[in-house]
Amino acid sequence: VRAAELSEPFPIVDLDTDVLSAARAIGAGRLPGLIVCDGDGRPHTILPGSQVLRFTIPAYVLDDPALARVYDDARSDRLMKDLARRTVRDVLPAPHDRDHLPVVDPDATVLEVAALMVRVHSPLVAVVDDGRVIGAITVSRLLETLLASDADES
Amino acid sequence: VRAAELSEPFPIVDLDTDVLSAARAIGAGRLPGLIVCDGDGRPHTILPGSQVLRFTIPAYVLDDPALARVYDDARSDRLMKDLARRTVRDVLPAPHDRDHLPVVDPDATVLEVAALMVRVHSPLVAVVDDGRVIGAITVSRLLETLLASDADES
Repeated sequence: VRAAELSEPFPIVDLDTDVLSAARAIGAGRLPGLIVCDGDGRPHTILPGSQVLRFTIPAYVLDDPALARVYDDARSDRLMKDLARRTVRDVLPAPHDRDHLPVVDPDATVLEVAALMVRVHSPLVAVVDDGRVIGAITVSRLLETLLASDADES
Repeated sequence: VRAAELSEPFPIVDLDTDVLSAARAIGAGRLPGLIVCDGDGRPHTILPGSQVLRFTIPAYVLDDPALARVYDDARSDRLMKDLARRTVRDVLPAPHDRDHLPVVDPDATVLEVAALMVRVHSPLVAVVDDGRVIGAITVSRLLETLLASDADES
């Protein structure tokens, strides 16, 4: 089994996509994150769902978690507006966390993909063919495949 | 919206569950991880899918990723047997990483759940009522809910 066979279609955003749209894509698809491409359609990095979530939380709550309970629904309107104004570029992790871009070529083996995920702590890797993202592979998809060969033989 | 409404059913394993079964539950449900309970059914910790994946990779590949491509399918049989012999207890992260058990009570607000996820870097939190796990909440489920209120109002 090679990466091309494991790959599934995945929503792609670019650096100028607003965070509200990105967050909705993650929520609607129940995804661990999104692939971020640059203006030329080349893979740039992964935006994990947890990173988007971080920007939905007001600074005063991150400073003092006890304040979370006093947050009321009225304030969620303001949250939407904040997210709509921000772009993916604004909320990406710091550049030094993006050094290991989780990308594999279509011929990568299951084990190569697994080793990369573990090494870079990414919930998904992009499969890239000739500079274009053709899909992505998640941890759960990989486990499913790693263990499926056993069922075939028994 | 409170944690009880966000909560979804989630597979639960205990410390003596074999890793092969745990990995299959993650793959079958496309889950970010599993909830681990102790013998009394009390929540113990979260086993992330990435941690299970780590144990599917032979040590020589983690030491030298270039060796991943030479791994062949014949060896995946041995991998199955290794995973079937190991228990969840054997593959859990070191205890110091488990200090912040991601658990909320059913009355926790969306923001409390979000703040906890960001703080402990967990892909999910368990919802616990009176010492019993009633379900779990994932990052994507939370984003879906945080942003749904906007759609209701527009």
